[in-house]
Amino acid sequence: MSPARKQLYLEDLHVGQLFSSRAHLIDAEQIKSFAAEFDPQPFHLSEEGAEGTLFGSLAASGWHTAALTMRMLVESVPLADGLVGAELQLSWPKPTRPGMRLRVVAEVVDITPSRSKPNMAIVTMRNETRNDEDEVLQIFTVKMPVFKRPA
Amino acid sequence: MSPARKQLYLEDLHVGQLFSSRAHLIDAEQIKSFAAEFDPQPFHLSEEGAEGTLFGSLAASGWHTAALTMRMLVESVPLADGLVGAELQLSWPKPTRPGMRLRVVAEVVDITPSRSKPNMAIVTMRNETRNDEDEVLQIFTVKMPVFKRPA
Repeated sequence: MSPARKQLYLEDLHVGQLFSSRAHLIDAEQIKSFAAEFDPQPFHLSEEGAEGTLFGSLAASGWHTAALTMRMLVESVPLADGLVGAELQLSWPKPTRPGMRLRVVAEVVDITPSRSKPNMAIVTMRNETRNDEDEVLQIFTVKMPVFKRPA
Repeated sequence: MSPARKQLYLEDLHVGQLFSSRAHLIDAEQIKSFAAEFDPQPFHLSEEGAEGTLFGSLAASGWHTAALTMRMLVESVPLADGLVGAELQLSWPKPTRPGMRLRVVAEVVDITPSRSKPNMAIVTMRNETRNDEDEVLQIFTVKMPVFKRPA
């Protein structure tokens, strides 16, 4: 975290606010390595294993796309108290393939003040992970507690 | 995949069916290593960094719990055509801490035949990731396409 980086509190957020991440180039080695550790299914492990499956050719585990998305969000949405998801929804409209450059566009879609904690709100963000053709690979909607700037 | 392992098709599933995974012991090194790669926030990176945060002490990234859960599901729910999530909901009622032994209890909660594809249904599974005290750390509900045994 660079000292010059702005730290955001609840007062700094508004509905419709957008954040954009850097891009991450995913390759076959990353895909196979993540799959070997966390999602060892044939279509994530090798080109040959993916033939004749739903995916047809090598595709990243959805959890890999999700984990890379989190990395890009941490780098581009600088909430002072961190990004801590309470509950979320996730879908993968298209597979993530080797050679794609991923990036995340995050939007604040709702801010609901807490009834019990006056210094907090539940902020809903909708995060789309897209490739260079602007195809949406993952839609990730999350509710997070966000706090006001300390007095 | 052992050759003796049963491969499950749609005909082999029923609502209420349960699957249980082996246990996975998570430690501080795994937590820090995953966080450094995918979720580099202070409360996931070090004991010191977690002090004074929402978590209070070192906690695993939720994406780490999710990825380990996927590993355990792949090993314990042997669907012949693989575990491929179309859409899902996820929540983390309690943090995953170093030293916990995680395991997954998966339940088939709905089977809805496809209207367009007679050989397929959308199967909903509810997967709870628990620790040794039977505390629920993650609830993961997912819709997956599941196919009939080939004729």
